[in-house]
Amino acid sequence: MTELFADRLTRAIEKKHSPVCVGIDPMLEMFPPELKPANMNDIDACVDAIYSFTMKVLEAVAPIAPIVKFQSAYFERYLWDGVEAYYSLIGEAEAMGLLTIGDVKRGDIGSTSTAYADAHLGDAPTREGEATSTPDAITINPFLGLDAIDPFVQSAIARDKGLFVLVRTSNPGSAHMQDVVTADGRTVSEMLADQLAPVAAQPTLMGELGFSSLGAVVGATQPHSMASLRARLPQSIFLLPGYGTQGATAEMTKAAFIKGRGAIVSASRSVLYPKRQPGQPWQAAVAAAAETMRAELQKAID
Amino acid sequence: MTELFADRLTRAIEKKHSPVCVGIDPMLEMFPPELKPANMNDIDACVDAIYSFTMKVLEAVAPIAPIVKFQSAYFERYLWDGVEAYYSLIGEAEAMGLLTIGDVKRGDIGSTSTAYADAHLGDAPTREGEATSTPDAITINPFLGLDAIDPFVQSAIARDKGLFVLVRTSNPGSAHMQDVVTADGRTVSEMLADQLAPVAAQPTLMGELGFSSLGAVVGATQPHSMASLRARLPQSIFLLPGYGTQGATAEMTKAAFIKGRGAIVSASRSVLYPKRQPGQPWQAAVAAAAETMRAELQKAID
Repeated sequence: MTELFADRLTRAIEKKHSPVCVGIDPMLEMFPPELKPANMNDIDACVDAIYSFTMKVLEAVAPIAPIVKFQSAYFERYLWDGVEAYYSLIGEAEAMGLLTIGDVKRGDIGSTSTAYADAHLGDAPTREGEATSTPDAITINPFLGLDAIDPFVQSAIARDKGLFVLVRTSNPGSAHMQDVVTADGRTVSEMLADQLAPVAAQPTLMGELGFSSLGAVVGATQPHSMASLRARLPQSIFLLPGYGTQGATAEMTKAAFIKGRGAIVSASRSVLYPKRQPGQPWQAAVAAAAETMRAELQKAID
Repeated sequence: MTELFADRLTRAIEKKHSPVCVGIDPMLEMFPPELKPANMNDIDACVDAIYSFTMKVLEAVAPIAPIVKFQSAYFERYLWDGVEAYYSLIGEAEAMGLLTIGDVKRGDIGSTSTAYADAHLGDAPTREGEATSTPDAITINPFLGLDAIDPFVQSAIARDKGLFVLVRTSNPGSAHMQDVVTADGRTVSEMLADQLAPVAAQPTLMGELGFSSLGAVVGATQPHSMASLRARLPQSIFLLPGYGTQGATAEMTKAAFIKGRGAIVSASRSVLYPKRQPGQPWQAAVAAAAETMRAELQKAID
């Protein structure tokens, strides 16, 4: 790779006229009946079903979404076979021309963070000389402080990969940590944004299109904090979860965009498990849900 | 299991007269020469070496330490084979009578947290009817708020397992997040401790020996905050990392103990990669390092 992640993502968004990020959250109990495993207690059957399901989702959304986000938990749930499927599907998405985010929310210190970065942004050792595809970007958790984030940053720089740091998450309870006001009047999220801004702005992370490969996760359910966080992190691409099932609308994402750029909006359940019209095949319903989301977002941000 | 994690751990500590928790951080480059893989770039060779190394560590420390803590990053580093080795070694440790912590520092929201809890505290689906051993407890990250922690708590209650929530970590940079003073005068760590206290105190988590299965990670390198956090979380077992290589001494851990109980002290590198006497086999040096640590801690807390 020679192009920075921020530029690759920005160009992919423009090419598809779409800030849609489809979240790959394979939950067996929500699968369409024809894709459910025969035996939900057999790990091989479960992983096979997840693989088939995800391949069909990727095929359906590849023309519409520039990027997909794999939720690691739903793969780890099926132990090492699930983890193998995760990496394999990252490679499949890449082969379809999709950019990928590994939603792993890792965070640790020093050499442990380096080991996580090696695992999740490459380079792991190879098997018989063959390398394993790793995501173009991952999500990371900032609770341990900037020195704990640094190994991820170094890894992203060395490999032209991206990071999305949790700054303000989409769940209601996050308010009691991230919206807490500090002695200097900023919320914890605002303080964090201020700490991250110079890291994001370093030349080795800044793409030629004006955005940094160090992005931020800011829940689309939080319009009250969006403008403030955007002002503090003007160069970070925002990953906005919470669209659809969690209640965020296209209108609520507006403050994250800068002249129509610099943000991606993620939806999982509303795209993966859509309401189907009578007789509509599930895969067509997935594509239609992604297309509706794309149109709604384009209308709101244009 | 019928006994709560907090009671199992407290009894194991008393039985071995030892609050020592050995951190399993397998770093190939620090392995004794005789255990290094022939090819550091071949994933099978690396995982085999890690497996052998860890088995020898477990054998050496089983008489001295009531509990061991597996650092997930060093297994994830070797992709799905590493993850398989992680679960397999958890089973081996269990078979040697050791309690186990999975140091996974996971944290997410809602059903995603439930999937993580299923993966890391059991019950994943089985393979040909055979269940996979999962750790007795895991570490979790509180940045997403209490509602994000709740699925882990419910899982721990249902399975008699334990949790150690990150409250104050051992790295220097954590100060810029966790020591930040909020508008009401508490640090972020203190605020978090106050939020966690009623969760820890609920009857379903409280063991008959006076401790809760909801514990806290508090760096042994942070004596200035230890007493305050202990006062706010009187029923949580403290997991104290940072002993040895990171600079914490036995004396610095004292404020975490309540009449000699309620804390475990974790060391990784200083036990796994000890200085060897001339001619001393590496495994004997590991046992000696763990025994020295045990003696130092017993002297400080008695």
